[in-house]
Amino acid sequence: MEKKNITFNDIARYTHFSKTTISRYFNNPDSLTLENQKKIADALVALDYKENKVARILANGKTEFVGIIIPNLFLHYYSQMLNQILSTYETYGYKFLVFVGNENESVERQYIQELLAYKIEGIIVLSHTISSKELASYDLPLVTIEREDRYTSSVNTDNYMGGAQATGLLCKNGCDILIHVNSDVPPETPAYGRIQGFLDICREHGLEHELILTDLGTSHSEAIDRTKKVLDALEAKYRKKRKGIFMSNDTYANILLNLIFQKYGRFPEDYRIVGFDDSPISSEAIIPFSTVGQQIDVIAREAMALLVAQMNERKKRNPSPLPAPIHKVVTPVLIRRGTAT
Amino acid sequence: MEKKNITFNDIARYTHFSKTTISRYFNNPDSLTLENQKKIADALVALDYKENKVARILANGKTEFVGIIIPNLFLHYYSQMLNQILSTYETYGYKFLVFVGNENESVERQYIQELLAYKIEGIIVLSHTISSKELASYDLPLVTIEREDRYTSSVNTDNYMGGAQATGLLCKNGCDILIHVNSDVPPETPAYGRIQGFLDICREHGLEHELILTDLGTSHSEAIDRTKKVLDALEAKYRKKRKGIFMSNDTYANILLNLIFQKYGRFPEDYRIVGFDDSPISSEAIIPFSTVGQQIDVIAREAMALLVAQMNERKKRNPSPLPAPIHKVVTPVLIRRGTAT
Repeated sequence: MEKKNITFNDIARYTHFSKTTISRYFNNPDSLTLENQKKIADALVALDYKENKVARILANGKTEFVGIIIPNLFLHYYSQMLNQILSTYETYGYKFLVFVGNENESVERQYIQELLAYKIEGIIVLSHTISSKELASYDLPLVTIEREDRYTSSVNTDNYMGGAQATGLLCKNGCDILIHVNSDVPPETPAYGRIQGFLDICREHGLEHELILTDLGTSHSEAIDRTKKVLDALEAKYRKKRKGIFMSNDTYANILLNLIFQKYGRFPEDYRIVGFDDSPISSEAIIPFSTVGQQIDVIAREAMALLVAQMNERKKRNPSPLPAPIHKVVTPVLIRRGTAT
Repeated sequence: MEKKNITFNDIARYTHFSKTTISRYFNNPDSLTLENQKKIADALVALDYKENKVARILANGKTEFVGIIIPNLFLHYYSQMLNQILSTYETYGYKFLVFVGNENESVERQYIQELLAYKIEGIIVLSHTISSKELASYDLPLVTIEREDRYTSSVNTDNYMGGAQATGLLCKNGCDILIHVNSDVPPETPAYGRIQGFLDICREHGLEHELILTDLGTSHSEAIDRTKKVLDALEAKYRKKRKGIFMSNDTYANILLNLIFQKYGRFPEDYRIVGFDDSPISSEAIIPFSTVGQQIDVIAREAMALLVAQMNERKKRNPSPLPAPIHKVVTPVLIRRGTAT
């Protein structure tokens, strides 16, 4: 028993208004008196009207859809960021079309083209595959998070500050030698700030330090093997010295901590470790370790606010485009646990 | 410099076909000869026509949108499942509107109502808040995963098999006493199978066993405190016995392993541990531990296939509804690592 769809004609007949008036109720309600709005609203209830949003989109061009492009859902950082962005539904009412890129640039580009055909209102990009120059050329409200952002508005963690915080903590823990292990990050990505922050603090305070730029691999077993080599080299080079090690993320910090703990059956006094991200592993590890936490909820909120402002501007009669991309940075939070207090 | 939208009128004028013919090209191309299809296709390229999918949806009712409702993105199980479902885009072309429930039943219900207004074609539900009876009443192609599913089609892990596999492995490791720690799962949820599998194998083989049904809490620190109490009780009760412990998930198995490793500085011979889920923590732990892995890729693929079959049926002239919900089970995979080989 399928229910018949209620049309604008039905509502017009029931209320004795013209079809144009009914259409105006849906697309520009403020052009009607409050009394007439009320009459139509009551009629909708009486007729058991189910809104067809697709028809409405066609009338006013507002889909209330936002696209999200993320690189993967394996890293906790991305799944938490997605979680926080999706939860803005309660604030703004935007629905999210989510796509996971998995480094496949051509599929990602095809997906974005599809989204544009669906007349989505805006897009948030966390993946790294498509340049900010190309993203900007789509001529759509757009915000990037924690990636190359020369031509796009963006929200990023203050990575420089995070690197400085981690280094400062190791310094305060009386380490004789400070070490930062990272991959060879390109200077134009926000994450490069961690390296810069480490180097600046060490140089400013005249601290003995070593920067190890090496690819620790993509699989877990590979990362263990390579971290073991780094650890062996450090033990040989800095015997008897208290070694303060700032790892580029919590996954690698955990691997290092496990290797040390397995070797000594405990966490020895001549090591201090700080990770980055405050991902669950930092508290689930054999002993909870110190880390630099990104304020993922704040980043998500700021990104959405930046996007909503652009989307609202587009709905004006004479929208003025952004004169230049807006870049926001969010301060990270140092979390002190057992490995560096 | 905004580009003018190309309309059906423009295409008709360019090709000298009627507007009806152009409309048929988009909505029922097979009603045109191949030659005429080619002429129109060429015209679209020449005119730089950008498809407006919203208009097309209105014409043929196919949005190509599927809704996904997940409880949270904190648990790795859900983020991996979401990842696998989203990656079916390349196979089926469906775009996904994703919503995270976070246990808020009324917001979840409101979101689903919105999705229905957007004429989505189907929905996949992983959250537990809304009963399968209510979900079935939406009269929409729908599949649930790993939750109560009396009135809905579903895909679940064979939890009974998983419980039996874990128990069998502990038995083979020469344990004197088998212990299963779980929360008081309701018998109608799929996860109850783990308890049943454990009990049946123990009884069948006449093994000494203990079932501990207790809430280990929601926060990590709470879980540590409560697991410590469980461990203390087991150490007092089964001194000198080899204890084979099957934990209900990897998060709790890791906590138990950490407590034991911290106490002894190693993993002692009189313990054997098996977790459930094969989440990253099972390999990132102080020693990689044995676990029962769910085939998340298979579950996601089966769920999508089940949904696509229902959605395709709806597009037929005389769709026949499913006579009864279809329930599929996917076999789990036992993964042997250092804590039980």
